[in-house]
Parts: sequence; structure tokens; C-alpha cells
Amino acid sequence: MVSMLFSDCSTSATARLVPLQRRISVLTSQLRSQVSLPWRPVSLRLVHSSGLRFQSPCTVASAMSTDTAAKIIDGKSVAKQIRDEIAGEIVKLKDATGVVPGLAVVLVGSRKDSQTYVRNKKKACEAVGITSYEANLPEDSTEEEVIKQISVFNNDPSVHGILVQLPLPRHMNEENILNAVGIEKDVDGFHPLNIGRLAMQGREPLFVPCTPKGCIELLHRYDVEIKGKRAVVIGRSNIVGMPAALLLQRANATVSIVHSYTKNPEEITRQADIVITAVGVANLVRGSWIKPGAVVIDVGINPVDDAESPKGYRLVGDVCFEEVSKVASAITPVPGGVGPMTIAMLLSNTLSSAKRIHNFQ
Amino acid sequence: MVSMLFSDCSTSATARLVPLQRRISVLTSQLRSQVSLPWRPVSLRLVHSSGLRFQSPCTVASAMSTDTAAKIIDGKSVAKQIRDEIAGEIVKLKDATGVVPGLAVVLVGSRKDSQTYVRNKKKACEAVGITSYEANLPEDSTEEEVIKQISVFNNDPSVHGILVQLPLPRHMNEENILNAVGIEKDVDGFHPLNIGRLAMQGREPLFVPCTPKGCIELLHRYDVEIKGKRAVVIGRSNIVGMPAALLLQRANATVSIVHSYTKNPEEITRQADIVITAVGVANLVRGSWIKPGAVVIDVGINPVDDAESPKGYRLVGDVCFEEVSKVASAITPVPGGVGPMTIAMLLSNTLSSAKRIHNFQ
Repeated sequence: MVSMLFSDCSTSATARLVPLQRRISVLTSQLRSQVSLPWRPVSLRLVHSSGLRFQSPCTVASAMSTDTAAKIIDGKSVAKQIRDEIAGEIVKLKDATGVVPGLAVVLVGSRKDSQTYVRNKKKACEAVGITSYEANLPEDSTEEEVIKQISVFNNDPSVHGILVQLPLPRHMNEENILNAVGIEKDVDGFHPLNIGRLAMQGREPLFVPCTPKGCIELLHRYDVEIKGKRAVVIGRSNIVGMPAALLLQRANATVSIVHSYTKNPEEITRQADIVITAVGVANLVRGSWIKPGAVVIDVGINPVDDAESPKGYRLVGDVCFEEVSKVASAITPVPGGVGPMTIAMLLSNTLSSAKRIHNFQ
Repeated sequence: MVSMLFSDCSTSATARLVPLQRRISVLTSQLRSQVSLPWRPVSLRLVHSSGLRFQSPCTVASAMSTDTAAKIIDGKSVAKQIRDEIAGEIVKLKDATGVVPGLAVVLVGSRKDSQTYVRNKKKACEAVGITSYEANLPEDSTEEEVIKQISVFNNDPSVHGILVQLPLPRHMNEENILNAVGIEKDVDGFHPLNIGRLAMQGREPLFVPCTPKGCIELLHRYDVEIKGKRAVVIGRSNIVGMPAALLLQRANATVSIVHSYTKNPEEITRQADIVITAVGVANLVRGSWIKPGAVVIDVGINPVDDAESPKGYRLVGDVCFEEVSKVASAITPVPGGVGPMTIAMLLSNTLSSAKRIHNFQ
């Protein structure tokens, strides 16, 4: 059993983050980089400029502690189930058409964390029967070289999905590079054309971004009704918060987006039946923020110092799990909640792409 | 002075709408067609399925009555000022480059209301020095014929903006036709690529849809601060509600979208500092929905029977003006509020397009 650890989120989860920078998840860094104002941990020791207050230290429970009232939304188990379903569908697709779905990953540079993510994605592909392709380009590649590589994958009929591992080296324009991915192979769903279709009624995106898609899938699999419910999304990043809000809206929730300029985030969040939080700030959301019985999906993956861990840190979400799990009716743990769903949705998008390209129902 | 008229919005503004169908504005019909569930007037006599209640008859004041507490946001006057600014800029552009901005309108069929709108747009173009082009295609044209005409305008260097007058005949696929408009001439801003860029942080749409752009422009010109404010958008159509919400979000408001599945629209709306309403239901928003001091932008244009009017009807907004103007700090009248801004923004988008294409700052 994982030991109980205590962390004062007004200090420890924040001030000592910098030395861990190289180890924090790409997801978290992407989230933070896309929040318009600095929701930076360092400013959270007192009162954040946008009005985010920490009332008391958060006693962080182990995610899998049984001392909770809320149902634990087990993303790990749901993701496994989805991967099994995908593996079954891939066999059918192959038997009927001879087609094997292919996912190409473009990795620029040699960041250790990115290499780990790419390795995990390749493993996940192999496990379900998706062929993975990888292009490793040196850190000092030019934008043109990266775009040329993407173009090769765009034109390769054995590739049905293309993923550019983020973050890219600083000298590159992320927008230019992501836009080079053919819309019909944009399994990350980050192309503005996909986002536009997601926002519009009567239009269908070819792909939905993996992490928010995973959040909604968890709600579906746990029979959480979305239609007519109040939903609050905390964070408005291009890769999670914003598309999560659009997805909830499509499912007919009444959606409010809380962000760094929101003056009373606690009050607004407390009105929600469903809360999705994706800001990358450890223990931001306290028990007092949550309406009793609400369902809480925690996308944050934040490292906090932990002398007892072999790595010297452990991962927590944006939600103070111990407090919130006593108020919510259901909650995702970190790790083991949304995290495993992201890769499962990537595999799902790749399979959908292969089926669409080969017109297989 | 316009006489005061009394209308019971629980009956007259609703039940007798059908005979006026041919005369109602295209904007209203577009709005209504894009609301996912039927927010139909007929069901508003008692209690709408989504929980919208009419507490008491709305005594509809004339839009320009002086018996109000709220400041009147005079869209007609602001729109004139903007048209004057545009005319000045067009002279500068022409003097410096010889370029005259051009707007092409594609009209399919012979709907009287559409013909009126096209005529008004042409007049507005002429008044500021934009050359207007028009293609009238017969009602029974094929989709291919319309797309071919759009393609002609796409390739015509004297055309900087292309507008397809909606609604199109029923046998046509609106999405296919709108997607045929070149993204760099999409002055309506309806292309999903523009909507996607509007939704994404760090991306810039080439064009912002005219009506929501006009709403935000009114707020700017009346020095209404948006950043950090609570905003509620009522309605989530592709052409007004949804892009209005995205624009408020870009301006750092905390935005909630109220729609036909929202269970407590009144309660949520009452939390807002800024309300934009765009549902096409006469007198939906009552005084009790509004927080004292809020700013209210009413996009609705709804015909209600009026025996004293030469036309037999008059236009009112989604807001019960007499009640709301006693609670709000500022409000747009109908007519004379958002309406005139839409065409002004179309002219503005056309000018921007010409400047961008010819690289003129």
C-alpha cells in the first residue's frame, strides 16, 4: 500500500518545483505554457494575483486510499478495457481489409521526458497491434526539415496518424509545424480546423484531442449524465481545457470556464455538477470548491517533493484529493485517472483514422 | 416619438409568429435553426421544456423611451462613426496603392428578405467606397453551380471578401458551400478554420464573425471592461452565440453559455456583469434575470404583432426592454443596437482583407 504523505500545498508543492523542471510531465508544461497569465506555483504561496487563495494546508492522501467517500474513477482500468476493445477491432480490420493501422511520431531533440513518452506510446501501439513509426530529428533541425519529415508521413499510406511530440525546440514555430500535419492524420486533434468543427454545431471534427476526449469517455463509462448539468472547466489550454469545455458543451452541459482572470473561482466551481481541472497547479482545488456530490476529473500531473520516494518526488493532481474526495461523489486519482486515458484515446483516434481512410465501418 | 405599445409576451409575441415567418429577419431564422433543441415560440406560452418561465407579462417599451435608468448603447450612432472611419481608411488605401476594396455577394433564389439584405449591404458598401459585386443564381441551381461561382470570386483579385447570403435553398448543403469560400476572403468568419483560431490561444483568426464582433465593439466603444468580468451568453448558434462566447473568453471574461438545456438560465444570467443574448425569442430575458448594473447586449430581432404599425408588426429583441432597462446599467435597443453594427463589421472585415492582401498597414 502506498504510504500516506503530508504536503503543505501552500509551500512545498510550489516553491521547490524548479529543480524538478526536467522531470515534470510534458502535459503539465504544455498546460502551463498555454495559460495566458502566469498561474505559476511560486506566486501561490500567498494569494495568487487572480484571487486564488489557499485557505489551509492540503493533507494529500494517497490516490488509492480507501478512506474516501467518493467513488474512484479508475482510469487505468477503463483505459485497459478500451485498449482491449481496440485490439479486437484492429484484428477485425486486418482480417477484413489487410490494413494495419499505423502511427508515426516525430520527435525533435533528445529531451529525456519526451523520449519516455514516445517510448510509452510505441509500446502501447505494439500492445494493440498498431504499427508505430518514429522519426528522430536532431535538436538543431530547421523548421523546414521537420515539416519535410511530416510531409513524408502525410504521403505514406501505411501511416494513419501523425503525432508531433511536444514541446518542440524553442527556435521552432509550433503553429507552423502542427499545421503541416495533414488534417486527415491529425490524431492529436490540435489542428484549428478540427477545433473549429468541435466548436460548431452541426459539424464533426475528424479527431478530438486525446486528453479531453479521455475525460468525457470516463464520464460516459461511469454513467455520469452530462446533458443539462452545470460543468466548470478550470484552465483553458488549447490541448485540454478549451476542447474539454467544447466537448461538454456539445454534450449539452451548461459550461463555465474558470481561468487566471476569474475573480471568484471557488464560488463558480462550487456551482458545478461536473468539474474538469487542467491547470497544472498542485492542490489548487480544495474541498470547499466542490459542490457535494459533484464529479471531479483531475487532469493535472504535478510533481511535489517527496523524500520517501526513490525519485525524490511524487505526482499529484490539481485537486487536493483528500479534501475533495470527501465532498465529491466520484473523482479521478492522480496517477491512474486521466493519464492512462490519453494514450488509449490516441490509439482510438489512430484506429478511427485507419477505418475512415479505408472506408471500414 | 414612437408610441408606447403593450404586449403580453407570454402570448402575443409567440403564438402568432408563423404568419410573419416570411418577414422575420434572416438573422433570427439563422439563429433559431442553429439552436440544437427547439426553443420554439409556441412552447413558450406556458413553461418551456428547458425550464424557461415567463413570470409576468412584459410591458414592452419603445426602444428609445427616455423612461429608463440604463444608458442606451446607441449602435446606430457607433456604426455610423465606424463607417466614417472605414471610409477615411479606404481613401488612404486607394491613394497609397490604387486598391479599392471589393465585396462579392452570392444570392441564391429570390427570397424577398434576402434581396433586401443584399440591397442594404450593397448600399452600405457604396457609401464607404467599397465596390460591391453580386451574383444572383436561380433557386434551382445546383450546389456545383454555386461553388463554381464562389470559385470565380475566389480567383478575382478585385474581390477581397465573399459573402454567401443565407439561408440557402433547402436542397443545398450549407457546409459544403460555405467551405468553398477561400479562407482569406471569408469576411463572414464562418469557416471552421477561423472559428478554430478564434477558440485557440496564441492563434489569430483572419476574420471574426460580424455580429459577435459588433457586440464586442459596442462594449469597447462604451468603455465596458471585459477582463475579469462574469459574462453570460444566451444562445450558442454558430453565427452569434458561440463566437461571442469565444470573443469574451479571449478578452479574459469568465464566460458561461446558457442554452436550451440549461436548467436555471435565470439564476446563471443573474450572476453576469455582461449579458449577450442571441436566441431569437421575443422578451425571453426579464428584469429578474439581470444583476443590477449589468450591461446587456441584445442580438435578437423578433417580430411581434402590432396593429398600429403600418406593416402589422414591429421588431423587439430577446430582452424585455422595459424591465431590463430599469435594472441594467447599459443596454442596446432593438432596433438600433446590434443590428447596424453587423453591416459595419462586414465593411470593416472587407477593408481588413483588402489591406492584408495588399500588405497595407
